[in-house]
Amino acid sequence: MNPKAILLIADGMADRPLKELGWKTPLEVARKPAMDRIAANGICGIIDPIAPGIPPGSDTATLAMLGYDPSKVYKGRGALEALGMGLVVLSGDVAFRCNFATVDKDLVVLDRRAGRIANEDASLLSSKLQRVKLFKYPDVKFTFKNAVQHRAALIIHGPKLSTAVSDSDPESDGKQVLEIEALDGTKEAQRTAAIVNTLMHEFHEVLKDDPVNKARARRGLPEANAILCRSAGTVSQMPSLQDKFGIESACIAAVSLIRGVCRVAGMKLIDVKGATGTLETDYQAKAKAAVRALKSNDFVLVHVKATDVASHDGNAHLKIDATEHVDEMLSYIIDHADMASTYLAVTADHTTSSRTRNHEGDPVPVAIMGLDVRRDDVTEFGERTCAMGGLNRIRGIDLMSILMGLLGKTKKFGS
Amino acid sequence: MNPKAILLIADGMADRPLKELGWKTPLEVARKPAMDRIAANGICGIIDPIAPGIPPGSDTATLAMLGYDPSKVYKGRGALEALGMGLVVLSGDVAFRCNFATVDKDLVVLDRRAGRIANEDASLLSSKLQRVKLFKYPDVKFTFKNAVQHRAALIIHGPKLSTAVSDSDPESDGKQVLEIEALDGTKEAQRTAAIVNTLMHEFHEVLKDDPVNKARARRGLPEANAILCRSAGTVSQMPSLQDKFGIESACIAAVSLIRGVCRVAGMKLIDVKGATGTLETDYQAKAKAAVRALKSNDFVLVHVKATDVASHDGNAHLKIDATEHVDEMLSYIIDHADMASTYLAVTADHTTSSRTRNHEGDPVPVAIMGLDVRRDDVTEFGERTCAMGGLNRIRGIDLMSILMGLLGKTKKFGS
Repeated sequence: MNPKAILLIADGMADRPLKELGWKTPLEVARKPAMDRIAANGICGIIDPIAPGIPPGSDTATLAMLGYDPSKVYKGRGALEALGMGLVVLSGDVAFRCNFATVDKDLVVLDRRAGRIANEDASLLSSKLQRVKLFKYPDVKFTFKNAVQHRAALIIHGPKLSTAVSDSDPESDGKQVLEIEALDGTKEAQRTAAIVNTLMHEFHEVLKDDPVNKARARRGLPEANAILCRSAGTVSQMPSLQDKFGIESACIAAVSLIRGVCRVAGMKLIDVKGATGTLETDYQAKAKAAVRALKSNDFVLVHVKATDVASHDGNAHLKIDATEHVDEMLSYIIDHADMASTYLAVTADHTTSSRTRNHEGDPVPVAIMGLDVRRDDVTEFGERTCAMGGLNRIRGIDLMSILMGLLGKTKKFGS
Repeated sequence: MNPKAILLIADGMADRPLKELGWKTPLEVARKPAMDRIAANGICGIIDPIAPGIPPGSDTATLAMLGYDPSKVYKGRGALEALGMGLVVLSGDVAFRCNFATVDKDLVVLDRRAGRIANEDASLLSSKLQRVKLFKYPDVKFTFKNAVQHRAALIIHGPKLSTAVSDSDPESDGKQVLEIEALDGTKEAQRTAAIVNTLMHEFHEVLKDDPVNKARARRGLPEANAILCRSAGTVSQMPSLQDKFGIESACIAAVSLIRGVCRVAGMKLIDVKGATGTLETDYQAKAKAAVRALKSNDFVLVHVKATDVASHDGNAHLKIDATEHVDEMLSYIIDHADMASTYLAVTADHTTSSRTRNHEGDPVPVAIMGLDVRRDDVTEFGERTCAMGGLNRIRGIDLMSILMGLLGKTKKFGS
């Protein structure tokens, strides 16, 4: 039987030792029998997702761990988010992450999330915005679509566009909406900034008089009368995992950003009911979906966001709890996948410190279990124990090659 | 309180096991309670300053450990030495390390150091040399300045110069002074060689009849009647540490070369009375200066040359002694800095073998102590013990990113 691989990435699961945990990390404190079993029966190591000391984003780290060099293929978050929402972003398009927001008459932001507007209202407003005409730019089209609550994406399609433009989102309430500016001296950047500024103005004109907002005002809800946009990005032309390794692959992830990364890698996206990308996700449903996906795929990526959410909240105990839920997913996988023909790897995409509440540049632990891996002496999964493992210290971009090497899918160089 | 970092680099402190020390290294034999404390409370590893097996210079290794890729920014030792002596070297200038030397009438070198000429004599002669006119090259100016004893620097300022020129210094007594030659086919290299050859000839004419040398001859001292030059270099345009990491930084080093490296990195140079860059330096004065410098800097580099001097002399016991003095510096720092907010790192810039008396390509040990580093199981600082540490094996260029990552000064890549 052809060997398969599952890679479980727990977002931001790695941490630094915390005083409140007696200078242990949440991962070191968590009860995690499955991770320890993978470590004890597998080969361990530490990974610099990007490079030592450099704090990765989840996008760049996941690209690297799928075998892509983010310094070459990463072109901004906006396009990945839009892709992850199921939109089409072509090479040359420029995509933005957007928020429905509430502004006053001077365009000062009163609520960056328009009271976390309900999906129904946002959908109605989005369909109105999609009808806006860009008369000044007949060669340009756009796609605007809402996602969960206040979140949305905007894609500009057309020739001569650039991602080198600033955000209109001032990133905090009480500040005025920003003019989008060209970040370099190119005509393309100036043109893109002008197009998006025009669009933002038109959107505001449409939104401020829309009956949906009149109704919201009557109900005492903040009006969603402006769109804020940020993180201009586009997509790279890059080979799919099928092209690179000749494999069928699938992704089980709830957050748009990771779904977008997996889409550009040509992976199938598997929707799992109850998977939310939050602390209240259905962990077991994702584990079950992963085992099922093994039937028709060589490689399955499972991404869990909850560990990172807890870290950004600075809540070490919540992080321990999320880590233990991740461990239960791995238990399920070990019990239900055919482990004689499955390589199972667990890692984090980056360190998130529960003290600084930021992504940090410290390496992340990794363990790979499977038939004939060079099992080492590490018996516990953790940031420090894995540093003693047989993989030593590798780069994010090496992980996929190692897994594909175990599956016999990497190409020989030389003869 | 904002975290700070001190990096102590003991030049050439790493070694290979020596038969005379029962196949231990000087570092393994030395009594070094402070280094062991840093190792025991910190995270350890080994560093390839440049790359495995490649013997680094102190200049390239220090550039790397400050986060610069020496393969990109290193443009020869001459310019760094001149900068370290406080001279101005601009991009496009070509600078040389020089010696006052004694030659016979056939330009055969009798003493490459002119009897280690006293500073006073060298200063008088230098001021004469600075008055030489380069009539043939009206667009060229030069700066000549003596440093300690026979050491000096020459900087050629002007258009169309090149560092691709050979040395006039034959590197040993009994050999004739060399003509400087172009090392590539460019006009710039030919022109630079011609300019410096002209200057060397003019210098010889001035020196051989100078009253200072007449007086030296009367006192039975070797006449400083020629200048030897070597190591043509220029400076790179490179971002300062302030540009790269947004930090204030300072350097405590006595030797010109390291001071020059720190100057190109935009660091403040702190002069310490009694710091000599020799075995007879005031170690404790440098440690005190380092702790003081922490008040107004985010990052302080402390460099000690003595360990390398002893290695080049092939004197393992002197090296052990110098290592123990370095350890006392670290003791002072641990006792007097606020260790709750200071990351303290110790390493060597390269291995110098007390047997071969050369820089060698073996990695160097490193230990980093501080608040929430991932403390590992290493309890002794040494070339072999640190290889078992939690940092595993890193490159020189990674060290600064790791330290700046701990200070929260590295920029996130991605989102």
